[in-house]
Amino acid sequence: MTATVDHYTETQRGALLETLRAFLRIPSISTLPEHRPDVDRAAEFVASELRQAGLARVHLIEGEGNPLVYGERIEAPGKPTVLCYGHYDVQPPDPLDEWKSPPFEPAIRGEDIFARGAADDKGQTLILIKAVEALVQLRGRLPVNVKFLIEGEEEVGGGHIEKHIREKGRSLGADAALICDTEMFAPGLPSLCIGLRGIVYTEVEVTGARQDLHSGVYGGVAPNPLLDLARILNGLKDAGGRILIPGFYDRVRPPDTAELDAWARLPFDEERYKRDEVGVEELTGEAGFSVFDRTWARPTLEVHGIRGGFTGDGAKTVIPARATAKVSMRLVADMDPAEAFEQFRRHVERITPRGVRSRVTLLAASGPSKVDPANGFVRAAAAALTEVFGVPTVYIRSGGSIPIVGLFAEHARIPSVLMGFGLPDDNLHAPNEKLHLPNFFRGIVAVARYLELLGE
Amino acid sequence: MTATVDHYTETQRGALLETLRAFLRIPSISTLPEHRPDVDRAAEFVASELRQAGLARVHLIEGEGNPLVYGERIEAPGKPTVLCYGHYDVQPPDPLDEWKSPPFEPAIRGEDIFARGAADDKGQTLILIKAVEALVQLRGRLPVNVKFLIEGEEEVGGGHIEKHIREKGRSLGADAALICDTEMFAPGLPSLCIGLRGIVYTEVEVTGARQDLHSGVYGGVAPNPLLDLARILNGLKDAGGRILIPGFYDRVRPPDTAELDAWARLPFDEERYKRDEVGVEELTGEAGFSVFDRTWARPTLEVHGIRGGFTGDGAKTVIPARATAKVSMRLVADMDPAEAFEQFRRHVERITPRGVRSRVTLLAASGPSKVDPANGFVRAAAAALTEVFGVPTVYIRSGGSIPIVGLFAEHARIPSVLMGFGLPDDNLHAPNEKLHLPNFFRGIVAVARYLELLGE
Repeated sequence: MTATVDHYTETQRGALLETLRAFLRIPSISTLPEHRPDVDRAAEFVASELRQAGLARVHLIEGEGNPLVYGERIEAPGKPTVLCYGHYDVQPPDPLDEWKSPPFEPAIRGEDIFARGAADDKGQTLILIKAVEALVQLRGRLPVNVKFLIEGEEEVGGGHIEKHIREKGRSLGADAALICDTEMFAPGLPSLCIGLRGIVYTEVEVTGARQDLHSGVYGGVAPNPLLDLARILNGLKDAGGRILIPGFYDRVRPPDTAELDAWARLPFDEERYKRDEVGVEELTGEAGFSVFDRTWARPTLEVHGIRGGFTGDGAKTVIPARATAKVSMRLVADMDPAEAFEQFRRHVERITPRGVRSRVTLLAASGPSKVDPANGFVRAAAAALTEVFGVPTVYIRSGGSIPIVGLFAEHARIPSVLMGFGLPDDNLHAPNEKLHLPNFFRGIVAVARYLELLGE
Repeated sequence: MTATVDHYTETQRGALLETLRAFLRIPSISTLPEHRPDVDRAAEFVASELRQAGLARVHLIEGEGNPLVYGERIEAPGKPTVLCYGHYDVQPPDPLDEWKSPPFEPAIRGEDIFARGAADDKGQTLILIKAVEALVQLRGRLPVNVKFLIEGEEEVGGGHIEKHIREKGRSLGADAALICDTEMFAPGLPSLCIGLRGIVYTEVEVTGARQDLHSGVYGGVAPNPLLDLARILNGLKDAGGRILIPGFYDRVRPPDTAELDAWARLPFDEERYKRDEVGVEELTGEAGFSVFDRTWARPTLEVHGIRGGFTGDGAKTVIPARATAKVSMRLVADMDPAEAFEQFRRHVERITPRGVRSRVTLLAASGPSKVDPANGFVRAAAAALTEVFGVPTVYIRSGGSIPIVGLFAEHARIPSVLMGFGLPDDNLHAPNEKLHLPNFFRGIVAVARYLELLGE
């Protein structure tokens, strides 16, 4: 059967690629309101693909925010129901001038397809749909029951699906979730992600004088919100990478010995990672912690952008009246987003220099999560991946945040299987995002095999 | 005669206002390349006004950058030649949404005209032209010789006029310069500016990884140029306002006792200045120095804008590959711009955190200047102002930078008289820039009177 799905992806290669390209051409950037029509087009595209895959009851769930796309195929009584999750929205493509080909004109170079959303998450969402389509086409029926719930706000906090899952709770009617939105540890190495960091994303605003001022006339007496914002940012994390917010590390749970042992066995060349993947002369972060610790098991704090004053070409001698910074923190088990935000807010208040006022706004939050590798769904997924890729599956974590995992656990009471087909150099959220095409095709085979194993 | 010019401005009020409005309507923003056609239009406008004022040899001096506008009237043998300087370019108007009326649609509210460039420097440039026009109209000839040199790059470093003055040197053929580009200390209080701060305007670029990175995946190991830029900015000036660059204060010359005594007699309500003019709850800056010291006689360092990462609405979890800040320093006598820049560059290099690289670029520089109040041109200007405004003229400084003053002194060997008709609340370089119309009309009378006194 595996061979058959394998063969199916071979023969359908051209059509599969054409569908992927069409999906990637839609600039469904959820954070930019002017792209709302594209977001809607992407939702319709997913619905149409679900119908073609043989799913029933395909419809858009409208509500506040972007539509959810639902579909199901319930025809295996007594068998588990798998809830397939993905997202059709993407990150903004800027800075545009660093893309080698336009972000919404998919270009194949070598074995990779380059476009915003290629790996995160349109390509991987399509893996789920096409695996089901392959089984339906080849067998006429599915070995398990499936439901699809594809959202369009993953990159902006996922408000709509959160509300939906909170309301539905256990009546979502599934036994496990299947999510393809993570990455393999290395090319050819099948990986299951069993831990995710949470996030608290904030905006810090600093205000000084009533209006912008001339730096010649008022330099020396007027507060400078940009400088004071820099002072605040400087007070958030020390030069060694340690976050200075009181109490911030109190709930951090270190990885257990078994996990640390497994990490030690992962094929990892720190020198190559530093040079080729991150692209730096020197890795930074907390002394005494490994790269896996620092990216998977330690909380972090980053600044994503600073706005205020004059940033055009040339010189403008302005002292701006206000400045803002986007600041996020990644959380690890057992940190609580609400508590972390409150600690952050109080700390910013405490270190705000005299002469300016500061205000902290919460833009998005989700908790960290950890799934149990002994769970039957996780074990079946590992078996399917091992079979299709021909090498043992490894258990890893991801430093990123997939809030849906926590929502599924808390409200629907189901575990999530994170079967990722991205690669570490896929440039997520950056220029030249790509998907490795062999992973796209093998992903379809592996997901199909997983559903088969679950049905046995 | 004064009364006559006074009467002339009364009868010509409508026409003078219409000319001012037409000048202010031209968005001649020199720092934005797309406004180059407007810059050219403004130059032509000035040339046309000079012709109408009765000047000869009016022409544009083309060269690298924006044209200089020249005109002269040489008909008073044995009398001094006054070189009138102004600029027809303006600052960018952003942030646009804080203007009560559009920046390039002049609007009169009360006794003020609101538009970008109203005070800095179109309104004041027109004062010079119209004073000459009034004398020519009323008398048929001028009491002294005048030359006009009006530039279009004052807001972007004045490269063209600098080259011109360096080349011409003493052959500019003038005995003193007259510049209306400063402000009166208070409404109704005639003021001569005898000291200006210099400026060194730089851009600091910090680069980290080869490309933008996902903060989930790489947060904990990747350098963050925005955070490290904040760290650098934080290391430039302490919380008390003292600049931390080694050697930076070495050449600072404190004001002499006579000047300090004069400052002590200026009408100044610090509480009102703080609340109504600066618009802050608390003035900042170096402890132990007065407001006059801090804004006129002490060097300062300001950040004008920070670029890098994502600053749109919503949340983007990016660690940017690079970040830049525009940073300027104001210099006082006897600081040297080249030396100050080098001290700054070395200090930034020294405090750049590990894991990132920094680069400092010089965008503009000019030295501080100080003119001698005992000079005959300065004394005649004080007498004219005292006569026209009816109260004794005060000697003040300006915290801003007018590089041309240093160039006139160094290359043409002439002193500059800084007769300013702006007011402290004119919002230079900020939204809602304005000019107090009574100052516009009295300025014309005062400049005419000054030329008459010089001719006696």
